Amino acid sequence: MKIRFKNAKILTMKDRDIIEGELWVEDDKITYVGPSCSSDQTFDKEIDCGRDLLMPGLKDAHTHTAMTFARSLADNYQLDDWLHKAIFPIEGKLTAEHIDAFYRLGVAEYLKGGVTSCFDMYFQAKATADAAKKIGFRHVFCGSVNDFGGLDRLEDEFDTYNSYDPLISYVLGFHAEYTTSRDKMERISQIAHDRKAPVYAHISETRAEVAGCVERYGVTPVVLFDQIGLFDFGGGGFHCVHFSEEDRKIFKKKGLFLVFNACSNLKLASGIAPVASYIREGQKIAVGTDGAGSNNALSMFREMYLDTVLSNVSEDDAASVDPFEILKAATVGGAECMGLTDCDVLEAGKQADIIRIDMSCPCMQPLNNIANNIVYSGDTSIVKMTMIAGKILYEDGKFNTIDISGVYDRCNGYMRELI
Amino acid sequence: MKIRFKNAKILTMKDRDIIEGELWVEDDKITYVGPSCSSDQTFDKEIDCGRDLLMPGLKDAHTHTAMTFARSLADNYQLDDWLHKAIFPIEGKLTAEHIDAFYRLGVAEYLKGGVTSCFDMYFQAKATADAAKKIGFRHVFCGSVNDFGGLDRLEDEFDTYNSYDPLISYVLGFHAEYTTSRDKMERISQIAHDRKAPVYAHISETRAEVAGCVERYGVTPVVLFDQIGLFDFGGGGFHCVHFSEEDRKIFKKKGLFLVFNACSNLKLASGIAPVASYIREGQKIAVGTDGAGSNNALSMFREMYLDTVLSNVSEDDAASVDPFEILKAATVGGAECMGLTDCDVLEAGKQADIIRIDMSCPCMQPLNNIANNIVYSGDTSIVKMTMIAGKILYEDGKFNTIDISGVYDRCNGYMRELI
Repeated sequence: MKIRFKNAKILTMKDRDIIEGELWVEDDKITYVGPSCSSDQTFDKEIDCGRDLLMPGLKDAHTHTAMTFARSLADNYQLDDWLHKAIFPIEGKLTAEHIDAFYRLGVAEYLKGGVTSCFDMYFQAKATADAAKKIGFRHVFCGSVNDFGGLDRLEDEFDTYNSYDPLISYVLGFHAEYTTSRDKMERISQIAHDRKAPVYAHISETRAEVAGCVERYGVTPVVLFDQIGLFDFGGGGFHCVHFSEEDRKIFKKKGLFLVFNACSNLKLASGIAPVASYIREGQKIAVGTDGAGSNNALSMFREMYLDTVLSNVSEDDAASVDPFEILKAATVGGAECMGLTDCDVLEAGKQADIIRIDMSCPCMQPLNNIANNIVYSGDTSIVKMTMIAGKILYEDGKFNTIDISGVYDRCNGYMRELI
Repeated sequence: MKIRFKNAKILTMKDRDIIEGELWVEDDKITYVGPSCSSDQTFDKEIDCGRDLLMPGLKDAHTHTAMTFARSLADNYQLDDWLHKAIFPIEGKLTAEHIDAFYRLGVAEYLKGGVTSCFDMYFQAKATADAAKKIGFRHVFCGSVNDFGGLDRLEDEFDTYNSYDPLISYVLGFHAEYTTSRDKMERISQIAHDRKAPVYAHISETRAEVAGCVERYGVTPVVLFDQIGLFDFGGGGFHCVHFSEEDRKIFKKKGLFLVFNACSNLKLASGIAPVASYIREGQKIAVGTDGAGSNNALSMFREMYLDTVLSNVSEDDAASVDPFEILKAATVGGAECMGLTDCDVLEAGKQADIIRIDMSCPCMQPLNNIANNIVYSGDTSIVKMTMIAGKILYEDGKFNTIDISGVYDRCNGYMRELI
């Protein structure tokens, strides 16, 4: 299948330049990005972009996709009650069928919002992988070991889902220090060393988490993980709100990723990550939504906006973060963080994970600065099309590989049983 | 013209209940809201809502609409440079033609985002009023007097635009304490007394503003305005980020409105309004976007989300603000603040300022709590239709009374001349 996008603006994300020209796709790959040119090739499909913008898909670098069941559920509970009275009792009942439906709902939200891959920490890996494969969504698992289980499965899942389908991959991970014993963390470190693989976890999301770790081990979670050798082959942390100077040094030295989850941190009163200072230090950064229970949307646009402006108040600086740095974190950074280095920018040879931004949305006008318009003014309404591995999965409000009304009926039916 | 919306969910905003039923409109008014019923009336148009939600339009209670020219313009400047090097030089050149085009761009963004009226502080009143009238948009002027001018026009404009068109009204206002001499403020107070009319201004947006006022007058802006008698017939303030205990008492006692502008306050590093504590005190509240130069979007959804979650961190409370209170502020509160008491809720006799929320957006599912879905997960993509005074101005991406591509061409052409 050969597709030609003509008459487009193209933000490759290799740099800040916007090319006026065209982009060609053959099967799952990009074959050309550049000025308009005559071609003796025949294309199966020619799309006139009407000067809309093509850019790499957004990468949601931390989420719990199937937690869409928890959207607007017990929003008025404090974290502890929310988990123990609302979430855990339902999670205990979730079957593969439930996960399939709530995962599809989450993926529909990603596609509508220009997200072409997610770094997903949840359970029921087979149901998830099969749904992703059927939809055509690029799914990166993050291991979710904790004291309730998972370690026995970690190596199996790592092997299984790294050779399951070109769209599926698996990265080592565990929930967090406060839910995982030292013994388990040491065994995860051994697995990481055996496979020379990076490891991710929730890290320093709340002050209480850091204080608890210091009480238990005398050091912060980052220092502990480093001591255990969990970061010897890279990786990083989700949230990263409350970092010490020493934590920052370890992340910088080892080239670990800080994945920001601004909406979740605000909603759960966890705090505000000092994004501006992390960027000044030259840390590696990515952007995630967290799950729909604690956000409650899966909108990378809202995240990008907040990661750009939230530091302004604490820094007393109206331009503390360059919006382009956040756009880069949400595309190129996320891709590297998730091991998707062939999905980062738009150039020949890369995977065709592409979104089309509707430049006829009022919030994208005038054209003073298109990248700034996306970050400061964009929301999911500006996404006109989402393509993954050369297949158009979403366009103009329609999902090509998801029976969306069926998904809604299933989800609402399941909620009546689960609550 | 008689229109019947059938098969709808209806959130009247009189309370939290959602009615399943229908809503009828005749000319500019709502004639029926309630359960489905047989009718011997003939309708000119019957719309099957497919169980989508109807609710009152959002009221943008503080904005500078035509400042869309400033979107993503010099975002990397600090406030002072941004004003003096980027904004003022352009504002000095703006003609009625420019204002017409940039205002239309802003109104298109409102309509797409479910905003049915705005409380607008800017200049070139005639060009603005004529554009609003032609589009069919409900426009409430807020007087914009400052030391550079405006006082001579205030009474004229008040009289002219309160009898110009049913969609147009005018409320007394001035820019702010730091741009308006005491003498001018006293004359505005006299006008307010003569007309028994409320007065609005930017109030306590930044710490520097409050400190400057205390230095000049020995009291905060709120206390000063109260001493001058500006609030003797009501009114309120835009931003209201840095209030003293005494300021709060004056606002409460006089029933004045606090209009929140969370995005602008973050972007300009002004601070975070303590929304939760204002609600606990029973203050009257409304929500606004501020202008596109300092936001940069005109999205009431992003504002509502932030007004709900931003207090969580400072209050260390994951449920510090009830999202329904913010939805009420953005509809009923805004309407009262702007003097539009016939546009606040959906009931027979009220103006037909109605939006249709697309319940088939993934972020609106499952249906655990629809109001929370709107506030916590909504963005402008969930707005399917916007009706003002019984006329459908926006539906499914199309503007019925704005030549949108013409507006874009004009705006981009003007930008090339103005920068």
